[in-house]
Amino acid sequence: MDNESTSGNKQRTLMTYISGTLKGAGQVMFQGSAWTGLLIMAGIFWGCYGPDGEHMPLVAWGALVGLVVSTAMGYIFESKSDGDQGLWGFNGILVGCAVFTFLGNTVWAWLALIFGSAMTVVARRGFNNVFAPFNTTSYTFPFIVVSWFILLSGRLMGQLPPVGEAVAEFPTNVTSPDLTYTFADLVIYWLKGISQVFLVNSWVTGIFFLVGLALCSRWAAFWAALSSAVALFVAIVFNAEHAGIINGLYGFSPVLTGIALGCTFYKPNVKSFFYALAGVVFTVFVQVGMDAFFAPVGLATLTAPFCVATWMFMLPMYKLRMSRQKSSH
Amino acid sequence: MDNESTSGNKQRTLMTYISGTLKGAGQVMFQGSAWTGLLIMAGIFWGCYGPDGEHMPLVAWGALVGLVVSTAMGYIFESKSDGDQGLWGFNGILVGCAVFTFLGNTVWAWLALIFGSAMTVVARRGFNNVFAPFNTTSYTFPFIVVSWFILLSGRLMGQLPPVGEAVAEFPTNVTSPDLTYTFADLVIYWLKGISQVFLVNSWVTGIFFLVGLALCSRWAAFWAALSSAVALFVAIVFNAEHAGIINGLYGFSPVLTGIALGCTFYKPNVKSFFYALAGVVFTVFVQVGMDAFFAPVGLATLTAPFCVATWMFMLPMYKLRMSRQKSSH
Amino acid sequence: MDNESTSGNKQRTLMTYISGTLKGAGQVMFQGSAWTGLLIMAGIFWGCYGPDGEHMPLVAWGALVGLVVSTAMGYIFESKSDGDQGLWGFNGILVGCAVFTFLGNTVWAWLALIFGSAMTVVARRGFNNVFAPFNTTSYTFPFIVVSWFILLSGRLMGQLPPVGEAVAEFPTNVTSPDLTYTFADLVIYWLKGISQVFLVNSWVTGIFFLVGLALCSRWAAFWAALSSAVALFVAIVFNAEHAGIINGLYGFSPVLTGIALGCTFYKPNVKSFFYALAGVVFTVFVQVGMDAFFAPVGLATLTAPFCVATWMFMLPMYKLRMSRQKSSH
Repeated sequence: MDNESTSGNKQRTLMTYISGTLKGAGQVMFQGSAWTGLLIMAGIFWGCYGPDGEHMPLVAWGALVGLVVSTAMGYIFESKSDGDQGLWGFNGILVGCAVFTFLGNTVWAWLALIFGSAMTVVARRGFNNVFAPFNTTSYTFPFIVVSWFILLSGRLMGQLPPVGEAVAEFPTNVTSPDLTYTFADLVIYWLKGISQVFLVNSWVTGIFFLVGLALCSRWAAFWAALSSAVALFVAIVFNAEHAGIINGLYGFSPVLTGIALGCTFYKPNVKSFFYALAGVVFTVFVQVGMDAFFAPVGLATLTAPFCVATWMFMLPMYKLRMSRQKSSH
Repeated sequence: MDNESTSGNKQRTLMTYISGTLKGAGQVMFQGSAWTGLLIMAGIFWGCYGPDGEHMPLVAWGALVGLVVSTAMGYIFESKSDGDQGLWGFNGILVGCAVFTFLGNTVWAWLALIFGSAMTVVARRGFNNVFAPFNTTSYTFPFIVVSWFILLSGRLMGQLPPVGEAVAEFPTNVTSPDLTYTFADLVIYWLKGISQVFLVNSWVTGIFFLVGLALCSRWAAFWAALSSAVALFVAIVFNAEHAGIINGLYGFSPVLTGIALGCTFYKPNVKSFFYALAGVVFTVFVQVGMDAFFAPVGLATLTAPFCVATWMFMLPMYKLRMSRQKSSH
Repeated sequence: MDNESTSGNKQRTLMTYISGTLKGAGQVMFQGSAWTGLLIMAGIFWGCYGPDGEHMPLVAWGALVGLVVSTAMGYIFESKSDGDQGLWGFNGILVGCAVFTFLGNTVWAWLALIFGSAMTVVARRGFNNVFAPFNTTSYTFPFIVVSWFILLSGRLMGQLPPVGEAVAEFPTNVTSPDLTYTFADLVIYWLKGISQVFLVNSWVTGIFFLVGLALCSRWAAFWAALSSAVALFVAIVFNAEHAGIINGLYGFSPVLTGIALGCTFYKPNVKSFFYALAGVVFTVFVQVGMDAFFAPVGLATLTAPFCVATWMFMLPMYKLRMSRQKSSH
């Protein structure tokens, strides 16, 4: 690298690195665009500082640190080309969001965040090797596995206080009456379903994300919007736990499934439309099912329902006109 | 399809479809025979309506709907040859049995049943791709995964009431005295171990199934009978929880393991006899172990113990004279 | 075999078999040396009978039986070359250690031990087939899977009393103050981290193991010592549950990860040093995380954290100068 560094090249290189880093934020939703990444970062900061958010500034700063650390690790120890596409950062940024959503602010939590973000680079390479024979990839699974171990460790390590984690309990059978809501409520739940992709609970952030997606791909924005709406509809008619509906917790995994199946791995067409739609609906049941399964340890599913459902729809390797610009996610 | 339809062809085709559908019931026990399927369906209806059953008519109708839906999905969207062998229906019929064994009768449970049965077609294609390099297949795992998500969802979705699911609790250490029984009791428990393959709790149904198996393969009937007896013996001498013994719940997975290893994937001979016998015994411990593992979420293992044990005995890819008529299950 | 047996050959053969059996004890820590195996066996017996141990003689005898049974099964039904390297015994000896650490002394527990040890031969062949495409192996996973089913069965089978198993409970959030300790305490915890590889809780046994390792490979002894120290350090600064620290329960999996990554699968060099060190640290979080995850069923993780972490660091298939004398573990 040093060999070829002239003043001009260095300038370009710095921008390349910044662009590669920002693209990492965009790649969570399969968009290798720095502008999308920038809007997503803005949305995260809004959600953490804005009036309708949860006032958790640490989440935003954790996301930034996780993004930078994992992208840097990828650039230093791994392939530059993946770095330029933002493919090293998308797991790290999510680790950053997850750690301070669920753990308290200690020096050791910061260390776990940095170590965990760096680990996603190793995990992504390894898991991608596992999925390569099936023409698919590990998606956000490196983030999930690394974060699960850190969040579970929070239960038994005094320096990782699990202040934001759910109480461990048996899954309780829902018997509450149907949810009542106005149309404005529905819009808010729908937008939160999108913002929760980054564990942010703010409808304004959902708008940031939709605009960011539209900047790079109208189809991605369409599928994000549609999938969150479909998931909301399914959750309401099946009368899923109300807190989950209100906070957009049944939406974020289906949003990712929709973008993945609807316009990333398959080209948008009639066949892939209905196939992706089935995937979105299935993701809701995977989400609720995993919520129940993890109740006794109080663990969050993170985006695992998206991974599980999308793998199940990609593993058949159906030929519904694969997207040529195949994501190497 | 329309192009080649003449009156005569249509007649033949209708029978082909009916036969392919019935074979789906038989393929749960690895028998691609419409007559076996017919006797199994009869056994299921007897178990749901008959005097010694549990009077759960919905289970039988759910089974029929699941069988038809999944077979139809396979014929329409997937390979006809697998359809003619009944390979699309065997997961769907089990989804149908499972939904109303564990969930209450709501419109939404019916929708989940239909959606889940259809999903098994996608899941089977995908999971079979995963197992192909190891010369084996996904067995009933598509049914298991899809049903687990639906049954777990029942905990947190008001419209999927988990009326038949176990109470979620910590696994309790058994301290009860040895089971007491007459010889007639043993025969009943043994036959129920066979009927529970389809989640039916009726000794008469067990006879239906044995006769159905014998129609297609004496060896399959022999292994079903032997495996249920061996599993019952192991469960009794190790003093497993009495309710499980009495209701045949330690028998159904070993029955499937026995048929799979003893005469389906290996030709019956001395080596494969003892190998399959070890597999049957091992399945009992997998069954009891998974029962304990799932206790905190009150989830049924379904036929997962059979899958896990049979995979563990197939993955070594030992050459004990493979059966030539290799099931593409 | 009988064909070639002359008096001289028989003599050689008997020693070969004894050597292959003892190497099985050494292969748990990746050392195919009969002397290492002998010291490990001595360490186990010391830990079970010695003044600083837990006075559980059954564990030592179980280990011996498990070692002999699994090695014999491998020699009889499987490859002789793996047998001569001790590769059939290392899972069986661990099954033997695990059964009587957690279950009470009944005839049926002995039968489960013998059956389980024999099963690890089948499981190892099968799991190794799964990992072969990724240039790695199943490590101690056959032992883990087989033992998990037996230990979980202990909950629901009266003849397998789970007298040594943890109470099933929700993972409780640690709020205790920092651990206080002297330097001598630290040395004891550190040595116990090594002895717990074989589920033995004795610092003297840790010395036995270190000496045994050094006989075959100084690097292995170095990595065992370093990894246990690093794991102890991480557990203390993150304030992990004190009982786990005091009994060396956070050390044994990192010890195995360290030996595996630091000097078995990679040649010792600067790159592999830091890579293995990261693996050791990561293993601690996998350990604590799995402890929390299994709390509701009261199941021990056994060496699963080592397997999970080492797979995650091997799957990327990085070229840090692979060790030529590649273990076929």
